[in-house]
Amino acid sequence: MTMKVTFLGTAGAIPTQKRSLPSVVLQCGNELLMFDCGEGAQRQMLTAKVGYHKEMRIFITHMHGDHVLGLPGLLQTMALMDRQRGVDVYGPVGIAHFLECLQETLQFAVTYPMQIHEVSDAGLVCDTENYAVTAAKSNHVLPSFAFCFQEKPRAGKFHPEKAKALGVSVGEAFGRLQRGETIQLPNGTVVQPSDVADAPRKGRKIIYTGDTRPFPEFAAFAAEADLVVHESTFDDALAEKAQVDGHSTPSQAAKETAEAHAKKLVLTHISARYSDSTILVEQAKKFFADVVVAEDFLELELPLSE
Amino acid sequence: MTMKVTFLGTAGAIPTQKRSLPSVVLQCGNELLMFDCGEGAQRQMLTAKVGYHKEMRIFITHMHGDHVLGLPGLLQTMALMDRQRGVDVYGPVGIAHFLECLQETLQFAVTYPMQIHEVSDAGLVCDTENYAVTAAKSNHVLPSFAFCFQEKPRAGKFHPEKAKALGVSVGEAFGRLQRGETIQLPNGTVVQPSDVADAPRKGRKIIYTGDTRPFPEFAAFAAEADLVVHESTFDDALAEKAQVDGHSTPSQAAKETAEAHAKKLVLTHISARYSDSTILVEQAKKFFADVVVAEDFLELELPLSE
Repeated sequence: MTMKVTFLGTAGAIPTQKRSLPSVVLQCGNELLMFDCGEGAQRQMLTAKVGYHKEMRIFITHMHGDHVLGLPGLLQTMALMDRQRGVDVYGPVGIAHFLECLQETLQFAVTYPMQIHEVSDAGLVCDTENYAVTAAKSNHVLPSFAFCFQEKPRAGKFHPEKAKALGVSVGEAFGRLQRGETIQLPNGTVVQPSDVADAPRKGRKIIYTGDTRPFPEFAAFAAEADLVVHESTFDDALAEKAQVDGHSTPSQAAKETAEAHAKKLVLTHISARYSDSTILVEQAKKFFADVVVAEDFLELELPLSE
Repeated sequence: MTMKVTFLGTAGAIPTQKRSLPSVVLQCGNELLMFDCGEGAQRQMLTAKVGYHKEMRIFITHMHGDHVLGLPGLLQTMALMDRQRGVDVYGPVGIAHFLECLQETLQFAVTYPMQIHEVSDAGLVCDTENYAVTAAKSNHVLPSFAFCFQEKPRAGKFHPEKAKALGVSVGEAFGRLQRGETIQLPNGTVVQPSDVADAPRKGRKIIYTGDTRPFPEFAAFAAEADLVVHESTFDDALAEKAQVDGHSTPSQAAKETAEAHAKKLVLTHISARYSDSTILVEQAKKFFADVVVAEDFLELELPLSE
């Protein structure tokens, strides 16, 4: 399954000419997962060539305008384009009322099934054949969640020569073993997947923090993630302001990522004051080496685990 | 007074890579008048270098998302930037409830005085020292208004030689006559402004239609306007669809503008289907010569009348 993360908007609460309001999408096979939907996200999707018609799940971290004001327009545009597939929206308590208000005051209706799932606590948010998304309570200035995308494990590497040696014929039995099923040969021998394949390969894991101060559950929540997308609104010199406003600095984001033994860190939700983000990278690099500051339309492919 | 119209967004209901959602601003001296505020308007303002801190009036033609979903984000951004000056918002009945809902569900507060004026009928909407804005009931699929910006007349050209010939001394009396006051000389002679100056010069006039089918009051409402900004969502071949959806075609917009004896026509609110707008201009030109299709960031200076 191909997996690509695209940053549609990387601004803090105020957009700039270069940075649109917060939104990150994960294209995962034929599905689209969106994390936050700031104003302008629908138009950024056009430039990023993301497409409006895929299977879609939208995850909102918290009910601040800069993270959610792109949602009504996106939902409306998809209706105008006669979308048929359902859309699932996940977000804090209050998101259903927000959308109801807008549907009432703007008289728009969606043409497709829309399910709104209010998230009120940490834990499993959605679970599909290929992945699960879980939430952790983050630490902003109002109820807020960080999300973890976890791909399901893939079968371990299959060794046909081992299967043949055990008497398994090439064909259907091979396929069943590769899918993780136990089989019985005509001679009564039972063959387990583990007899002919390596241990299952871990699925890919991505963390999206939304707006938050550092929070103690982070290291466990993000443990060994392939990618951490962490907000870093202010640089270290403004740590006090970050604390008051419920945000993080590069050092804090990098320390958290290092403690989680994650592989890669991308900083986003960048305050409009940083026309040059070099200082943010420098501050983060003291604690975690593989870090970049996101720019709008940055794309990251996540390779299959070995 | 300098007067410049800037098109921030020229799309129909669905944005494109080239066209943001509907919004037009008029910079008028140190004031900013905005007509509609589609999603993304605040960011388009940055690119257009319009500025967030001017005296500002915002006029919303109707309560469809594509015309108003940029408003909450703009109001919030100006609050985050610590705007102090008041903002006046004018729009159809329902706009106050729309903003209340968003302020409640997104927990944002404005830092500046904000007056919301609900417009329920045709007539005067606002009246200032320099201009007045009036509304006409347009003909869309829900209550909708077109707006007319009318600059106040300026004093006619002053002829100092005529004043001197009548015995007026250079100085304060000159100034009073130039401002349109009648004066009396020490010898008892009464001098009228019309004795020493040409007739007052007409102020500039701009029409912004919002979404509408042609409507019978248009010709009088837009009479002799310097600029008509008219929606033209669909081309003439889709006249039937335009009628059903409450929109206009280039021919309709051009005929209306010609009947109004206006000077210039700009078509906007262009459906996403027209990647090339040549056909729209061609259809309009059959009925009105001075016509262009707006592109995002088109700027038009309106010269002072002679």
